[in-house]
Amino acid sequence: MPRFSASYLVETPLDPERAAAAMAGEQSSGTFLKLAGETDALRERHAARVEAVVPLETTKSPSLPGALPGETYQRAEVTLSWPLENIGASLPNLMATVLGNLTELRELSGFRLTDVALPDEFIEAMPGPQFSIPGTRLLAGVDHGPLIGTIIKPSVGLSPEDTADLVRQLVEAGIDFIKDDELIADPPYSPLAERVPAIMRVIEEHAQRTGRKPMYAFNITGDIDEMRRRHDLVRDHGGTCVMASVNWIGMSSLVALRRHAQLPIHGHRNGWGLFYRHPHLGIDYRAYQALLRLAGADHLHVNGLASKFVEADSSVIDSALACLTPLLETSNRDDRAMPVFSSAQTIHQAPATYAALRSTDLIYTCGGGIMGHPSGVAAGCHSIRAAWEATVSGATLEEHATQEPDLVVALRAYPSPFSG
Amino acid sequence: MPRFSASYLVETPLDPERAAAAMAGEQSSGTFLKLAGETDALRERHAARVEAVVPLETTKSPSLPGALPGETYQRAEVTLSWPLENIGASLPNLMATVLGNLTELRELSGFRLTDVALPDEFIEAMPGPQFSIPGTRLLAGVDHGPLIGTIIKPSVGLSPEDTADLVRQLVEAGIDFIKDDELIADPPYSPLAERVPAIMRVIEEHAQRTGRKPMYAFNITGDIDEMRRRHDLVRDHGGTCVMASVNWIGMSSLVALRRHAQLPIHGHRNGWGLFYRHPHLGIDYRAYQALLRLAGADHLHVNGLASKFVEADSSVIDSALACLTPLLETSNRDDRAMPVFSSAQTIHQAPATYAALRSTDLIYTCGGGIMGHPSGVAAGCHSIRAAWEATVSGATLEEHATQEPDLVVALRAYPSPFSG
Repeated sequence: MPRFSASYLVETPLDPERAAAAMAGEQSSGTFLKLAGETDALRERHAARVEAVVPLETTKSPSLPGALPGETYQRAEVTLSWPLENIGASLPNLMATVLGNLTELRELSGFRLTDVALPDEFIEAMPGPQFSIPGTRLLAGVDHGPLIGTIIKPSVGLSPEDTADLVRQLVEAGIDFIKDDELIADPPYSPLAERVPAIMRVIEEHAQRTGRKPMYAFNITGDIDEMRRRHDLVRDHGGTCVMASVNWIGMSSLVALRRHAQLPIHGHRNGWGLFYRHPHLGIDYRAYQALLRLAGADHLHVNGLASKFVEADSSVIDSALACLTPLLETSNRDDRAMPVFSSAQTIHQAPATYAALRSTDLIYTCGGGIMGHPSGVAAGCHSIRAAWEATVSGATLEEHATQEPDLVVALRAYPSPFSG
Repeated sequence: MPRFSASYLVETPLDPERAAAAMAGEQSSGTFLKLAGETDALRERHAARVEAVVPLETTKSPSLPGALPGETYQRAEVTLSWPLENIGASLPNLMATVLGNLTELRELSGFRLTDVALPDEFIEAMPGPQFSIPGTRLLAGVDHGPLIGTIIKPSVGLSPEDTADLVRQLVEAGIDFIKDDELIADPPYSPLAERVPAIMRVIEEHAQRTGRKPMYAFNITGDIDEMRRRHDLVRDHGGTCVMASVNWIGMSSLVALRRHAQLPIHGHRNGWGLFYRHPHLGIDYRAYQALLRLAGADHLHVNGLASKFVEADSSVIDSALACLTPLLETSNRDDRAMPVFSSAQTIHQAPATYAALRSTDLIYTCGGGIMGHPSGVAAGCHSIRAAWEATVSGATLEEHATQEPDLVVALRAYPSPFSG
């Protein structure tokens, strides 16, 4: 009988073994009474099982309020497992089982889901990424190196025509990838029905002239029927990517969008801070990105090194490596997601990003890092590409700059976030 | 130009005015450069506006890691507003705007969304609850007092026939409302295709014999197409309620389910602990329940007083009162949700619950509080109803018990969670 398991970092005023038993009980029978119908056979077949409890350090005060009082609070790694039969192949019901009421137990003063392990049957029943890295490279016409990208700014307020004018500049500058900001989807001042044709006219003209068709991720976030219609609009105008705010559309809608989609799905995780900002509450992205990939995301945001956000660099790298690790090793299906780096990225993050990943299977988006280049947008775009070429070839940015004037200018214009 | 606003409890190492300005900037232009296309006219029309900053206490250490360093950290209430034009009438895009990257700003060492205020245009464009309180009462045949309910336990493992046998006991005992646990949706060992007919056969027989048709909330959580099919299955067998794990299906799927539904939607918020357990991270239910109602939830869980979970009683009551407060005062549409009380509820929580709400427009679910009654399930059910009748009439449970033997037994069997 295949089982799935979930690992947690917990903190408890109780003996961790007892806390783990409470967790397992809550997620299989869940009441304070011994139940008439809960036979030994039923329990044997359906109960959650405590697979491992590894005690860690203790702390004097609880990380989260509301828990049972204790003299000290012990942290522990706990792994629980369940028979797959309890849920079938369903992502939202997986979430209800591995998170659910566990998040509110008085036995726990800290609760963080750190990983999930799913049987092949579950993984194979999920749609998974349709395009993944090879499909994205093919559509974007970028066979090696990262996709150099940017985000339309200002985030809000540009008309479709103004946006198309900006896109013209960007594609002429040699960009590989452009995306809408998460703050603009289908608003009355820039409806997709006008924005998509205006932008795709520019991109198609560029493609016909140059043979290169940059990828544009249109933000189609909405109700599922809206998203299906918007996807079709993008597809019908020759667009090659759709984007959605995955936390707000939800797991069920992501699966539904994936089953409908003929284009890669760019998964934007805005709001994710709610899940990771407290070290003893929430979900590790290692666990969550796997579920988003199973639901069908082809690209997933991971922030970037030395970004303007709170996330530690080590967490960013762990997230990106997770996205690049296959879920099913033995399958022909490529179920990796392309990690998307963003937020305050310039030439300077290329070396450290590559050193940590040893891969260029990523989308590297810069705003000011491209648009703010003193010699213009094309030079900005080229300087980022040159920074990655240097890095992959094993040269420093300074060494490579001897052949790349745009990189020289960028080195002078952008201070390194790692120095000082 | 109609605007929507969001209120926050934040904590910051900066002057709170500066932190609020950073929040507004992030959620309308969002880069570290002054942008070419960001004209004054555009900013005037689309920028987020800081509506209020109310400084609160300071603290020595940050509530959340990763923020900019400071000597002290000041808490403050911040209210921002945006033109509705930025998003149109879309719940997932509202979430991206009022939460989004704000959750990761280094300017904030605490971040909690406390409320949202939406213009009538937005509210009217949302489906809202289809049945709300009057529709639920009509379908359940309960014109006054709370719906007395219970949850099928064991949560997992019962076959369709075993579940139907339990339902027979419960409906014969006089229950108004039964629900699946959130841990069981449509698993292979109890597929809805078998569970729904088995249960509805029992309920329909009971209805024909007695004229009373208790409401059963079938957990149809799944992908949106699965949910639509499962909803139809429930409807076609005479069922009167469907349930979904709202956090895992997501806002877009809840809207889609509501637009399809001909039955009340029972919104189960399992996993909600992630959003409220830390006082300086997350979302207040006051804000979130409004969005779930706009998406179409007819019933919403609020935990219960003196429950086995971490939530404080004051928070439970605040949540329930929020569910019972209309969003549009002037409309004919009833957009309240029926709050669902659960977890370790017995006769003893009736008086305090009623004292706080001054309403019986609620679903009061008991597990052991009914099933564990020494005189049996019918006595358990009757004792809960008697406790509420006593409370509404202004009598104490002890006073009313003189006329109610089942209540006498319950008073002896169940210790009060409020005493001692």
